[in-house]
Amino acid sequence: MSEPFRVGLLGHGTVGSAFDRLLGERADAIATATGRRPELCGVLTRSQGAFAEILSKADAIVELMGGIEPARECALASLAAGKPFVTANKQLLSQHGDELLAASRRTGVQVRYEAAVAGVVPVIRVMRESFAGAHLEKVYGIVNGTTNYILSEMARSGASYADALARAQELGYAEADPTEDVTGKDAAAKMAILARLGFHTSVHLDDVPYEGVEEITADDIDYAKEFGLVLKLLGVAERRGAGVSVRVFPAFLYGSHPLASVSGPFNAVTLESPAITEITLSGPGAGGIETASAVLGDLVSVISSGGMELDPIEQLPIVPGEEVESAFYLHLEVADRPGVLAEIARVLGDNEVSVKSVVQKGLGENARLVMVMHPVVERCFIDAVESISKLELLRGPPRAIRVIEEEFAA
Amino acid sequence: MSEPFRVGLLGHGTVGSAFDRLLGERADAIATATGRRPELCGVLTRSQGAFAEILSKADAIVELMGGIEPARECALASLAAGKPFVTANKQLLSQHGDELLAASRRTGVQVRYEAAVAGVVPVIRVMRESFAGAHLEKVYGIVNGTTNYILSEMARSGASYADALARAQELGYAEADPTEDVTGKDAAAKMAILARLGFHTSVHLDDVPYEGVEEITADDIDYAKEFGLVLKLLGVAERRGAGVSVRVFPAFLYGSHPLASVSGPFNAVTLESPAITEITLSGPGAGGIETASAVLGDLVSVISSGGMELDPIEQLPIVPGEEVESAFYLHLEVADRPGVLAEIARVLGDNEVSVKSVVQKGLGENARLVMVMHPVVERCFIDAVESISKLELLRGPPRAIRVIEEEFAA
Repeated sequence: MSEPFRVGLLGHGTVGSAFDRLLGERADAIATATGRRPELCGVLTRSQGAFAEILSKADAIVELMGGIEPARECALASLAAGKPFVTANKQLLSQHGDELLAASRRTGVQVRYEAAVAGVVPVIRVMRESFAGAHLEKVYGIVNGTTNYILSEMARSGASYADALARAQELGYAEADPTEDVTGKDAAAKMAILARLGFHTSVHLDDVPYEGVEEITADDIDYAKEFGLVLKLLGVAERRGAGVSVRVFPAFLYGSHPLASVSGPFNAVTLESPAITEITLSGPGAGGIETASAVLGDLVSVISSGGMELDPIEQLPIVPGEEVESAFYLHLEVADRPGVLAEIARVLGDNEVSVKSVVQKGLGENARLVMVMHPVVERCFIDAVESISKLELLRGPPRAIRVIEEEFAA
Repeated sequence: MSEPFRVGLLGHGTVGSAFDRLLGERADAIATATGRRPELCGVLTRSQGAFAEILSKADAIVELMGGIEPARECALASLAAGKPFVTANKQLLSQHGDELLAASRRTGVQVRYEAAVAGVVPVIRVMRESFAGAHLEKVYGIVNGTTNYILSEMARSGASYADALARAQELGYAEADPTEDVTGKDAAAKMAILARLGFHTSVHLDDVPYEGVEEITADDIDYAKEFGLVLKLLGVAERRGAGVSVRVFPAFLYGSHPLASVSGPFNAVTLESPAITEITLSGPGAGGIETASAVLGDLVSVISSGGMELDPIEQLPIVPGEEVESAFYLHLEVADRPGVLAEIARVLGDNEVSVKSVVQKGLGENARLVMVMHPVVERCFIDAVESISKLELLRGPPRAIRVIEEEFAA
């Protein structure tokens, strides 16, 4: 094992402390994957630490303070010292991106900022790398989880904007001062970052006109349902003739649109390119742990400089399918007479298979039973179906298909 | 500008020729981004070219022949010669992954295979890089576009399996011999690749039990709708205790599941990790141009060795929002009397705004007009609304919200 990889951490708030914890948990796995074990060599907060000292010891700087200064100065000092700079700071990137990225090119030192846009949804990486060989026509999506939660809540419950905002604040999806989110400014900063990266052109936050969700009424959301429309706060960056247009505004989408079903505090971004049609990436927007995880992904890239093939760490046993728990749909054609359902239920019960719901329909002499089971070890279900298929009351072979039961945050 | 980056291309079928064309189109942009212009130094087909000669000239090999041999031998020779190897070959990876990746580690030469799974959806890259710092619990999704098209078509039209397959073949979504796709074997190979990468353990195609869609009836799809269920062919790889389970099977999903709305020949993969909740990536499955585009993304990574900050190529003009075309929703409260709609329609028409649909509702003295417009240059719409807001018949301020009108392949 070679030397540890020393990380200077700037900021120790919600995201900073989540990063600190996650780094500790994952250090061994990262060491196995990259050959170097990451460890903190210093933490800068408002009350403690000296940046110059941390920088001198560090192999890379992770900036999670937010705000423009001193983040900007630290970034420039870090690059000048040849130390890669990883940040989640969208304001810094959207307002001083030109300066930072010019410094990165001049020094040949990496700046990474996946966590600045769409939390853990890896849109920056995909644009930088997967789309490096493609011509991007348009990038658009839902890049603010607070407003998406508010709009989802208004649509779901008919709540007013004020009530939905209050609920978002209770749940921690909105800040006490939600101004940056609800005015669209937060989304505008992210769209400036995406537009720069996607079109290889300088785009400043000031170039992005934005509208927020403060004026939206529950009525509008309701009336628009008559047209099959769903309201979202969209960021849109696209080529227009020889130029680019970058904007943030609330917009109605038809229900079949891939972004229409992205609800709650989720983010989703769609990339369009003639050679690719479109790719959509979705996942939870920025929370402390999600942002920290995105930052850690960037740090791993910095340590490994990308492209490294991970070693198999250990050979894990392959679990046979029959030992896995699954829920099942079961379709039976049976004789239509009293006691049939009871007999089938008994066989299922004997094999520890529990019925969640059942629909029975008469078909003349016969009846059709369509059942959905609770999850059960597959061996039990297979045994039950084998027993059922031998019952005299059966009129055709049973048909079973698995059911995925998970619940979703979205 | 430094030396060109010489690419040896193995195979010149559908994907190979699409790659050849795309490489030509994008060579200048890649040169600007990476500093080296990619160019073909040789093409191997069944009837022409000599691998040894191509290898000796190449800086990297792109393998798009498919099949196990001679692809496997070429891969090993390429790595032994220190030349990065980029491939779209899922059979090779799922059956000889151990050997190939061991050779890659031994020689320190990259193997890249984004195009082998889910076409242009960058699931390999995201797992390798974004999740390198995370603990992956589960990866699952729709990794075969042919069967997803067939199931979508059966659900949409009530067609039988045979008819839906025939339609898929007509549209080029299924091969003349669809066996690998419809039996689930193709998906199994892809899941073996994802499981290896996600859990850092050896998983061979033979470790993956698979079921296909051949036995699915339109009846099952129909009955299950009563429970709100949608049928998909799923690949699932997950940790189970100390082991892993990797399987492919048809499964019902509840309509609210993120994968339930992925229809037609699309692919989608969801990654679950405790630190991240879940990320879903979706896009078109493998077609010639999409696969070629994924291969090109890998090649760009090989050339740049990742992490390079792209130069702004040129400063593009920022197009003002008012010059962009948008569709609009317009909500008006108006006096409920004859001629009101005509007057509003006249003002819209004078400004070249065309109405797509309108709903009018009485509210006692007043009426509510909710309209959706066809796309129009925003300046025209803004002028129209300004004129409308001055009309004597108006009972409250107009409310306008943009509508996204695009159609979707999915």
